[in-house]
Amino acid sequence: MPSPDPARRNENARRAVLDATLDLLQEVPYPRITIEGIASRAGVGKQTIYRWWASKAAVLFDAFLLLSARDGSDTPQLPDTGDLQADLTLVLRATVVELNDPRLSDPMRALATELAQDESLAEAYHRQLDAPLREAKRQRLREAQEAGQLADDLDLDVAIDIIWGPILNRWLQRSGPLSDEYVDALLRTALRGMRP
Amino acid sequence: MPSPDPARRNENARRAVLDATLDLLQEVPYPRITIEGIASRAGVGKQTIYRWWASKAAVLFDAFLLLSARDGSDTPQLPDTGDLQADLTLVLRATVVELNDPRLSDPMRALATELAQDESLAEAYHRQLDAPLREAKRQRLREAQEAGQLADDLDLDVAIDIIWGPILNRWLQRSGPLSDEYVDALLRTALRGMRP
Repeated sequence: MPSPDPARRNENARRAVLDATLDLLQEVPYPRITIEGIASRAGVGKQTIYRWWASKAAVLFDAFLLLSARDGSDTPQLPDTGDLQADLTLVLRATVVELNDPRLSDPMRALATELAQDESLAEAYHRQLDAPLREAKRQRLREAQEAGQLADDLDLDVAIDIIWGPILNRWLQRSGPLSDEYVDALLRTALRGMRP
Repeated sequence: MPSPDPARRNENARRAVLDATLDLLQEVPYPRITIEGIASRAGVGKQTIYRWWASKAAVLFDAFLLLSARDGSDTPQLPDTGDLQADLTLVLRATVVELNDPRLSDPMRALATELAQDESLAEAYHRQLDAPLREAKRQRLREAQEAGQLADDLDLDVAIDIIWGPILNRWLQRSGPLSDEYVDALLRTALRGMRP
């Protein structure tokens, strides 16, 4: 029975659309997902989707926001055992596992390519999804800096790019395999340039 | 008057399609370029394009190959004054100028997003277009290594990723501005980790 409350009914339809998108991302390559396909899976009319979202990319983005809120990853934190290299090894090896897993990698790749093409979507992504994660990375590096493990004059944003950028670029451009050995070699060289 | 030689006629049509693609990339955002639009600009039938190329991405890729052959950039070389940091500063600052110029950046972004989505296209790209460039980077770093300016045990492919990956990732994901200052800070920290 449809809810008698229009606001509730809208929220239910919105959720159904986002859940349908997340489901489809597990089954169909992103380029083959259509607004029609999402509407059909969600049991809503195509017009309902067009009323709320400007594009398939906008639906994808909100689906990621929902996923991130469910994960509780809106307040992410990096491990801090006091050993920066060990902590980053753990984090980056886990990232590599995710990037090598098509179930996670395909939707992330879809979002990454939409960001590359759409400046306002990229701006929303960095503000809403990436900023908390980047702040967590900055915080972990700041602690290492305060503990004298990183150079005082190190630009932490440049450091983040040097640690994460090569892996993300290699993944997105498919320019080489991502392995534990790669993570270790990368961190060894990257961190050596950041020490006092 | 059409050429009486069918092979010549085919080659002319092929060139016309690739030139039309390069022209359109200067005028229209890549997502809005269609096979129909390319055919119309090239003065060929849509079926001619579908006979030779599997997708718009495949046409784009061949257009880049043509561009690269014209540039003579199939045998690229990095400057070598003996001062690695100065040479890389020059190269990366020039790259940043290109990446900040929509006339160059938009087509490169189009290709990059197609590579992210299409594994076999990415494989062809890395073999035909990126490999000579990567070898030129490796060669420049190898010379620095042999001159004792880089550590003997440095993995040159990891080094290439650390030097170029952050810039490419920042550009493609639009995660921050690309400036000369960014290049300088990046190189300062990256190279410090690579010295003997």
